[in-house]
Amino acid sequence: MLTKEGCPGNMLAIKDAIEVIEGRWKLPIMIAISKGSKRFSEIGKEIRISDKMLSRELKALEEHKLLTRTATDSFPPIVEYAITEHGMSLGKLMQELYQWGQEHRKQVLGS
Amino acid sequence: MLTKEGCPGNMLAIKDAIEVIEGRWKLPIMIAISKGSKRFSEIGKEIRISDKMLSRELKALEEHKLLTRTATDSFPPIVEYAITEHGMSLGKLMQELYQWGQEHRKQVLGS
Repeated sequence: MLTKEGCPGNMLAIKDAIEVIEGRWKLPIMIAISKGSKRFSEIGKEIRISDKMLSRELKALEEHKLLTRTATDSFPPIVEYAITEHGMSLGKLMQELYQWGQEHRKQVLGS
Repeated sequence: MLTKEGCPGNMLAIKDAIEVIEGRWKLPIMIAISKGSKRFSEIGKEIRISDKMLSRELKALEEHKLLTRTATDSFPPIVEYAITEHGMSLGKLMQELYQWGQEHRKQVLGS
């Protein structure tokens, strides 16, 4: 367990991390683009999210530098979203969350 | 990144994990008891939480098998909360969140 001495500073970093991953949509979006860049509509169809919500979440993820947005100079413009190196680093954290969550299920449900 | 194929099941475990650690109080409570069992009032003073909120959070953490509640048969009864082995396993996850959160700060704030 993290030591109490370093707690306030540690908690800030932990809170930051949780803020990035919590909520219903952020991780599914990151998974959707983790194997290659995708267009707005492709992501929307894949994870079944409304355009309005997807737009908001993509903006937040871009601000967090987890993905990049690229618009090509064509008509109609093609907008693509690609995962960044920093975004890829979420993979390890998700793996840890996944493993802990599985163990937690066993502990709580006894299965 | 977690593969899409296993996604729904994986996401369930990840959501479980996030549910346990999100919110303002759960991790501070776990940190408070991580070095030894504590009484209700000791935890309350340490993390400055209202009795009502602490009572609710402790109950949730007990249901999640992250801590145990023991009441001694004295008058007035002494109620102590101790971290479980499963609760201790949160340490590694917190360490990962901490490290990722720190790296995230660097990426976003550029510092």
